Amino acid sequence: MPTGRAPEPTVLRLSIYLRCLRQVHAEGLDTISSAGIQERTGITAGQVRKDLSYFGEFGKPGLGYAVEPLLTRLSHIMQLDRPRKVVIVGAGNLGAALAGYQGLRSSIFSLVAAFDNNLSKIGRPLWDVEIKDVRELPRITQEQGVEIGIITTPAEAAQGVAELMAQGGIRSILNFSPTRIVSPQGTTIRNVDLMKELEVICFYLPKP
Amino acid sequence: MPTGRAPEPTVLRLSIYLRCLRQVHAEGLDTISSAGIQERTGITAGQVRKDLSYFGEFGKPGLGYAVEPLLTRLSHIMQLDRPRKVVIVGAGNLGAALAGYQGLRSSIFSLVAAFDNNLSKIGRPLWDVEIKDVRELPRITQEQGVEIGIITTPAEAAQGVAELMAQGGIRSILNFSPTRIVSPQGTTIRNVDLMKELEVICFYLPKP
Repeated sequence: MPTGRAPEPTVLRLSIYLRCLRQVHAEGLDTISSAGIQERTGITAGQVRKDLSYFGEFGKPGLGYAVEPLLTRLSHIMQLDRPRKVVIVGAGNLGAALAGYQGLRSSIFSLVAAFDNNLSKIGRPLWDVEIKDVRELPRITQEQGVEIGIITTPAEAAQGVAELMAQGGIRSILNFSPTRIVSPQGTTIRNVDLMKELEVICFYLPKP
Repeated sequence: MPTGRAPEPTVLRLSIYLRCLRQVHAEGLDTISSAGIQERTGITAGQVRKDLSYFGEFGKPGLGYAVEPLLTRLSHIMQLDRPRKVVIVGAGNLGAALAGYQGLRSSIFSLVAAFDNNLSKIGRPLWDVEIKDVRELPRITQEQGVEIGIITTPAEAAQGVAELMAQGGIRSILNFSPTRIVSPQGTTIRNVDLMKELEVICFYLPKP
């Protein structure tokens, strides 16, 4: 069974199964086979069976997986079965895009504040939250019990922001700034590199 | 050897090796061992050796991989060894964030135009390109030989934009809109789900 340090590819697949199961559930299906999951996700039925077998006996021979119990179990494993408070630091285009992202407004996540160091932005609204001075971050995130921080600052500010987040009790950081940062003690950082996606699709361009 | 339809996890790992090798090269190192790649990427040395063995004999016993030839070869495999023209459709916050992304301005990719259907945006600049009417997309991308399209529109516009891109000769599409879209004939679509990253980091939050 995956631990808190399960290999990233496994965690990414769990996240994909979860999305697939949510969709299947929304369509009103009670069961889905590993072949059905393959069809919807592109992950082979063998890999699906192997991954899901870690979490108990959900498959019924000839019927497939019972959707609802598996969905509940996977949400629990992924720790997505309770609300999570989020802050965004960097109220530029990307910060505004993420703050307005509809997934962030219809899910377990709630955005409690945005932060910037630019005096012309502080005090203004970003969608339905107020942009606050980044120096207030540790106090506010401590007080509100914020667990997740999203960094959308320029590269040179990112490491300092991560340190402030750690001071403020944040334990997981999603870094969209175009630099890799080092995890402050007690935090997990996920560096999201938007260029990587662009490089990956080049692989799929027609061969000359 | 991976084909145009190599499994996505393999392609993602190639992209990670490439980034690692670029960094190592920038640091002036001539060789790196599979253990060194593991240390920098978190991918096990065994997996690294297995993946790279597809591409020929780069490893020297006791010395590791010669960085420069491997970098050249991997760039070629990933089709990242020549310039690629890109357009962005949807000149909102996310489109503006991506258009300004520094990786898109210091790489093989060049942004040739941005498009929108909002009359108040058409004709205005987005960083150093002009926002054009999305109805002009097929003509412009044909004329300029654009290969890659990035969709940053609202969900309901995304499928129609993908069809226009296909008409305009675009072969690879990166979809950031919050919906999955179906690939028009002759195109490969990569759906980028920013919420997925948020879900994945929840897995790494401290267990209660």
